[in-house]
Amino acid sequence: RMNVESFNLDHNKVIAPYVRVADRKTGAHGDIIVKYDVRFSQPNKEHMDMMAVHSLEHLTAEHIRNHADYVIDFGPMGCQTGFYLTVLNHEDYDEILEVLERTMEDILEADEVPASNEKQCGWAAHHTLEGAKEVAREFLSKRNEWHIVFA
Amino acid sequence: RMNVESFNLDHNKVIAPYVRVADRKTGAHGDIIVKYDVRFSQPNKEHMDMMAVHSLEHLTAEHIRNHADYVIDFGPMGCQTGFYLTVLNHEDYDEILEVLERTMEDILEADEVPASNEKQCGWAAHHTLEGAKEVAREFLSKRNEWHIVFA
Ligand SMILES: N[C@@H](CCSC[C@H]1O[C@@H](O)[C@H](O)[C@@H]1O)C(=O)O
Ligand SMILES: N[C@@H](CCSC[C@H]1O[C@@H](O)[C@H](O)[C@@H]1O)C(=O)O
Repeated sequence: RMNVESFNLDHNKVIAPYVRVADRKTGAHGDIIVKYDVRFSQPNKEHMDMMAVHSLEHLTAEHIRNHADYVIDFGPMGCQTGFYLTVLNHEDYDEILEVLERTMEDILEADEVPASNEKQCGWAAHHTLEGAKEVAREFLSKRNEWHIVFA
Repeated sequence: RMNVESFNLDHNKVIAPYVRVADRKTGAHGDIIVKYDVRFSQPNKEHMDMMAVHSLEHLTAEHIRNHADYVIDFGPMGCQTGFYLTVLNHEDYDEILEVLERTMEDILEADEVPASNEKQCGWAAHHTLEGAKEVAREFLSKRNEWHIVFA
């Protein structure tokens, strides 16, 4: 097996959208870090455009922390088919799905992309609220399939 | 102050490239998670193209773990100006710079992008070894400025 967890996942066998535990590490003192693979688009068949990815990153980073105080990071995959959600001392998979559901609902209600200005963002011009909503809407429409990872 | 750390950073005041401690969390049991902002491109002036970002993600994720066993994640920012490097129980900033330096040197020597095939990657067609090397070369050329974050 290889160093990097995702290099061991057979991307031909997964069915997006899905949410999967990608990695779990226990620190020397006993804290647990869990990394979820939150897959929006079917690998090697489709991908999100980067403006939508960027805005979804800002919107989710902001809103998810209102539902969960244990979020370490929500960040895009380079392949543009999903995001990694990293959390601290939280192992309730079903609650993660609920938190993601509530966050996506918030995004559908949002009337701006948070921090989409040059002071607060690395590329302020590269945002699309509508694009992010479209991705969130599509993901939410398959809410009952999120727990099914493989065909 | 806002929920999301990067929303509190004044992106008009930073000078890329740089490496900065973005966040530091202590778990209930005492483990420490540190998130570094590894900035390659000057915010709102330039950005990396996504093929280079994607390949640099694969190359770094693979090679950095040969130099450091405490890496939790190396993932792109949606703004395409940098990456977040998240580590467990490691607070030696100078060593992080050395690990990044050695990893970038590995990338300049690489003759392929690891896991750039449909089984192991979400978008196998979207890679550029030369693009990733160009970004690594440019970053390495300013090695002596990585610790300078603000003008
Ligand atoms: N993933 C992180 C931060 C999200 S916003 C990230 C943005 O900060 C800024 O530096 C860039 O514009 C980037 O796109 C988190 O979850 O905290
Ligand atoms: N940031 C992580 C994984 C890097 S490779 C990520 C890739 O996995 C695959 O699912 C996608 O192609 C994605 O681009 C890490 O550091 O472990």
